[in-house]
Amino acid sequence: MLHLQSESAKRWLAQVDQSLDEILIDHAHCERKAASTAMNLMNAYTDNRPLCVEMTRIVEEELEHFHMVLDVLDARGIPFRRLASGPYGRKLNQLVRPSEPLRAVDRLLVASLIEARSCERFRLLADHVRQRDSELADFYAGLFESEARHHTTYVQIAEHFQPRDDVRQRLDELSAQEAEIIAGGCDLPRMHS
Amino acid sequence: MLHLQSESAKRWLAQVDQSLDEILIDHAHCERKAASTAMNLMNAYTDNRPLCVEMTRIVEEELEHFHMVLDVLDARGIPFRRLASGPYGRKLNQLVRPSEPLRAVDRLLVASLIEARSCERFRLLADHVRQRDSELADFYAGLFESEARHHTTYVQIAEHFQPRDDVRQRLDELSAQEAEIIAGGCDLPRMHS
Ligand SMILES: [Fe+2]
Ligand SMILES: [Fe+2]
Ligand SMILES: [Fe+2]
Ligand SMILES: [Fe+2]
Repeated sequence: MLHLQSESAKRWLAQVDQSLDEILIDHAHCERKAASTAMNLMNAYTDNRPLCVEMTRIVEEELEHFHMVLDVLDARGIPFRRLASGPYGRKLNQLVRPSEPLRAVDRLLVASLIEARSCERFRLLADHVRQRDSELADFYAGLFESEARHHTTYVQIAEHFQPRDDVRQRLDELSAQEAEIIAGGCDLPRMHS
Repeated sequence: MLHLQSESAKRWLAQVDQSLDEILIDHAHCERKAASTAMNLMNAYTDNRPLCVEMTRIVEEELEHFHMVLDVLDARGIPFRRLASGPYGRKLNQLVRPSEPLRAVDRLLVASLIEARSCERFRLLADHVRQRDSELADFYAGLFESEARHHTTYVQIAEHFQPRDDVRQRLDELSAQEAEIIAGGCDLPRMHS
């Protein structure tokens, strides 16, 4: 359903154990960046009405998630702060082909894969902390559904720019590369490290 | 209340009479850009919590306005399309001082002045078309209040970055320049031409 070609390595759960606070802070930034991504897509393809409708919904939901994560930080006494970004998003965005409509398809599919990986990690995190922190586990389990829906929405909107078969083939290519990028990891503890 | 130093010239109402459809299309873009401006400010100053809270509200309201204007276009059979931008926003943004915290203050005050000018023009437009198009007049009268509130919010948030007196003085300077820029006009019929 999520079109991912790998499961997250155990390595990441070690980072969760060691640096949960920093991963929570990064998660807040991820939600803000997800809202920005949807807004940027609406700015770039503003004459596509279904895209504008769906991106508006995603912006609203990601901003809601951003504030939900800030509330979690507040409740735990973790000060929100700026963080250096990991390489995950940057490397994925480098795969976007430059000329339209391929650029639109790739931007939407990259966004769909980031949503998918977030989903996978939310579930993993929820399962991992369930025994010792059921509140946090419930929080992440609750986010799973909407991020999965965002994944599907981005793929569907990509099909406004190219035939379905082309989009599915490109999604396979990009998800193979996503699996390589995420396997590369990152020493900074991040949601996508 | 809006800190504007001029009233719009009659010239603009002539553009409204001649090219109302294009001005309505431009208005939709203005709302989308207003949402983006608030999002960009949240990205730039994400460690300022009150700013994040207020920018989130503005993003949501501007996106709602964007779709309200799209509905007006649909109801009138006006196809939404891309438009070349007028010089108003670009000229105002050139006034932003480069170093922080002055940059933050200026970005917020420029945003506040665009909201203020929109307000002024919404009321002018509403009064101008009232006799022949009460539906459109009501629509613009209804938007007035929230844009006036956005103006105030931006000024208040600027006061998180500099003392109130400095902000008020800079607002006077920028609004004097805004009055010059809007007086310069633009041949393209736009909300801020
Ligand atoms: Fe989210
Ligand atoms: Fe999402
Ligand atoms: Fe608005
Ligand atoms: Fe506004």
